[in-house]
Amino acid sequence: MDADEFRKRGREMIDYVADYLENIRDRRPLPSVQPGFMKELLPDHAPENPEKWEDVFKDIERVIMPGVTHWHNPQFHAYFPTSNSYPGILADILSDAIGCIGFSWASSPSCTELEVIVMDWLGKLLDLPKEFLFCSGGRGGGVIQGTASEATLVALLSARSHVLHRLKEKDPNLNEAHVMSRLVAYCSDQSHSSVERAGLIGAVQMKKIETDEKSSLRGSSLRDMIESDQAKGLIPFFRNQAYSRVNNKALCYSIKLGEQNNIWMHIDAAYAGSAFICPEFRPLLNGYAMSFNFNPHKWMLVNFDCSAMVKDSKLVSEAFTVDPLYLQHENQGKMPDYRHWHIPLGRRFRSLKVWFVLRLYGLKGLQEYIRKDVRLAHEFENFVKDDNRFEIFGEVILGLIEAINDDGRIHLVPSKVKDTYFLRFAICASRTNSDDVKFAWENYKFVHLILCICKQYKNTL
Amino acid sequence: MDADEFRKRGREMIDYVADYLENIRDRRPLPSVQPGFMKELLPDHAPENPEKWEDVFKDIERVIMPGVTHWHNPQFHAYFPTSNSYPGILADILSDAIGCIGFSWASSPSCTELEVIVMDWLGKLLDLPKEFLFCSGGRGGGVIQGTASEATLVALLSARSHVLHRLKEKDPNLNEAHVMSRLVAYCSDQSHSSVERAGLIGAVQMKKIETDEKSSLRGSSLRDMIESDQAKGLIPFFRNQAYSRVNNKALCYSIKLGEQNNIWMHIDAAYAGSAFICPEFRPLLNGYAMSFNFNPHKWMLVNFDCSAMVKDSKLVSEAFTVDPLYLQHENQGKMPDYRHWHIPLGRRFRSLKVWFVLRLYGLKGLQEYIRKDVRLAHEFENFVKDDNRFEIFGEVILGLIEAINDDGRIHLVPSKVKDTYFLRFAICASRTNSDDVKFAWENYKFVHLILCICKQYKNTL
Repeated sequence: MDADEFRKRGREMIDYVADYLENIRDRRPLPSVQPGFMKELLPDHAPENPEKWEDVFKDIERVIMPGVTHWHNPQFHAYFPTSNSYPGILADILSDAIGCIGFSWASSPSCTELEVIVMDWLGKLLDLPKEFLFCSGGRGGGVIQGTASEATLVALLSARSHVLHRLKEKDPNLNEAHVMSRLVAYCSDQSHSSVERAGLIGAVQMKKIETDEKSSLRGSSLRDMIESDQAKGLIPFFRNQAYSRVNNKALCYSIKLGEQNNIWMHIDAAYAGSAFICPEFRPLLNGYAMSFNFNPHKWMLVNFDCSAMVKDSKLVSEAFTVDPLYLQHENQGKMPDYRHWHIPLGRRFRSLKVWFVLRLYGLKGLQEYIRKDVRLAHEFENFVKDDNRFEIFGEVILGLIEAINDDGRIHLVPSKVKDTYFLRFAICASRTNSDDVKFAWENYKFVHLILCICKQYKNTL
Repeated sequence: MDADEFRKRGREMIDYVADYLENIRDRRPLPSVQPGFMKELLPDHAPENPEKWEDVFKDIERVIMPGVTHWHNPQFHAYFPTSNSYPGILADILSDAIGCIGFSWASSPSCTELEVIVMDWLGKLLDLPKEFLFCSGGRGGGVIQGTASEATLVALLSARSHVLHRLKEKDPNLNEAHVMSRLVAYCSDQSHSSVERAGLIGAVQMKKIETDEKSSLRGSSLRDMIESDQAKGLIPFFRNQAYSRVNNKALCYSIKLGEQNNIWMHIDAAYAGSAFICPEFRPLLNGYAMSFNFNPHKWMLVNFDCSAMVKDSKLVSEAFTVDPLYLQHENQGKMPDYRHWHIPLGRRFRSLKVWFVLRLYGLKGLQEYIRKDVRLAHEFENFVKDDNRFEIFGEVILGLIEAINDDGRIHLVPSKVKDTYFLRFAICASRTNSDDVKFAWENYKFVHLILCICKQYKNTL
């Protein structure tokens, strides 16, 4: 494909994308295909000779679309939202064309420097304390990870390296394996699966702390557990704290960069974090943290993947540094070499999409978007409140959900808190409006669902 | 930005990209900016109100481009190649628009099924034994990882989980920490930094085996080391084998899926693997392996990121499985749930770009591309052979390289094998041709470089 053909096909693809997103309501959010459906539609090997563009292009509708779960259909209320915006798509085209691998400053200075800048911009939008940011000139600094799972893992590995280093300074003859076996990390019993996985990968014990009836982690439960573990000779070193709660009274945080009792606190605000750009949705964040993460790709109109993490950059990079000659350059130390800040070596130019979105929406545009979704959630809450049949619990819920999903007009998934199953109704697509929420509710009623997640949803922004 | 504006701006961006790539020779491969350059060009916070497209768009040239290292400039010969092609860019636009998070089959069936299919296509193009592929109906199967670093880590973690599981079956009261401290992994002393990092992250000892004068790992050195480690009570469990060598006589492999002596062999053919689509470049691969990885994003015209890994899928997924209710679905087990196959939970629809590239180039087009690059490398080799001043070693090379890079017309980086520094001359950009190679050579001569990497390069395809 030469440049002229690319110009032509590029226009076709841009128009296809605009058509797809503008008419996405006409497609079922959940496809009706069965496992293995695609095998029948494609040959079992790649072609020997080049195929025509027309044939590939028309296969998007013939082969791909029948099996797509349309996450941006306004009636997709499953899992969690993932962002998608025209500015984000345009920035990604540029990122693909530049196609640099920004593992170090020298490997593409703009790739590193724009990331440094937009991470500071994001930190300021969320009103995070300056000490978490580059501009403080201190230990803070941000990086774009692929997902919150990776951010949690990076935090845990950094904490592991830090505690081992600290203990070795005290006792150089330390048996590292013995120390590893005594390390304990903590999370709530409602934590995301990625936290448990981080413990598995890092080969450290991850203890789940039981939450109270409001699914909150009580400070006292954690303190008791830590004290009891220390008494047993264990070494508490890491705590994952998910922030999904909103406190209407807290308009600012009083969080500091640092450890408390030698425990590295990682704040995971993957979904909720984007809402913190609205002062009225900021949570009550107090105390010390070493790392903070949220996903602009969830609720800030930045296309997946973009997980924004700010932290003690020195300790994070120390945990990963392996520095062969061919990756070194004369300007080391003046700007971050992001290869030391995460798992992969290579990295795409992801800050471009954050930059485009922040500039083309502006803070006001993004706040408006967040507030609209919260308003829609309240509208749904009111529908539920007005119907006495809801808030009943039962065990047939899973089947009913399948019924809804088979119907195909809306899509949502079940979840579970402690022993209670519930439906998770999430406002996901940027195009979801009041009528969609009404429609979803009518469908809920129609199949006589027995439980609804509204109250839960309201609290777990 | 509404759909109409997106159509308009999309065309502008497509044209910008075509112009950028067609005229990339006019830009210096290595920029001349200093660390911190961008801070002066941008405000220190995101805008309050939306900005105009025109202002953002013109900042691509004002702010971004001055600091871009142009990896696709034909005179970029640094690090390693990264692919870029028009079909790959077009597929990524579609992937961004669909914007699904394909962590399970149900979360977007097409995202999983196309990946299953193109991974089989790739395996067949490389003539890998069927038992590594889905279509065998056995334990094999492929997955797209982000980078080779992640593939190596996933292999090592799977091997770690597997050996712990095996030993626990023998002795349920096993002290896991004690076993962890006795696990040993092996790689060559020429291995990529990511291998050492995988050992660090997985908290296992990674031993580097000394290579011979040809930088080859001798089987006997490894055997000796393993036997000596076993005699000390250690548990050898993992071996990373980089394949960067080509054997002109080997037109097929005799590799099997499985372990030998309970050691998980991971084959990392990140760069060279793409060349295996040409029978004449296939290496002598014998024996057993549990996982094999190569990067279509390096040398197969698929835009970064796309690292293709085939392996024992059962053992890999077992190492990572944490399976909360809200991610489960009724069709589990019939098709892979890729979230169990790698570190992140979320994943983009990356198989689309592999599919577009394989179909729009065809096997023949891709072979032609690989063979052209090999031809260019030989042309460069001949220039060097004809000049007696080369093959001299010296310690001033680093300074000279900086001289070349300051000059800015070509870009390459130094490397080191054992105690010898050398220049790494890599054919990277798809647009590099004979004239570019001649130009690069004239520049080499011009600054009287003292060493050249041609011979090395020829052997390390």
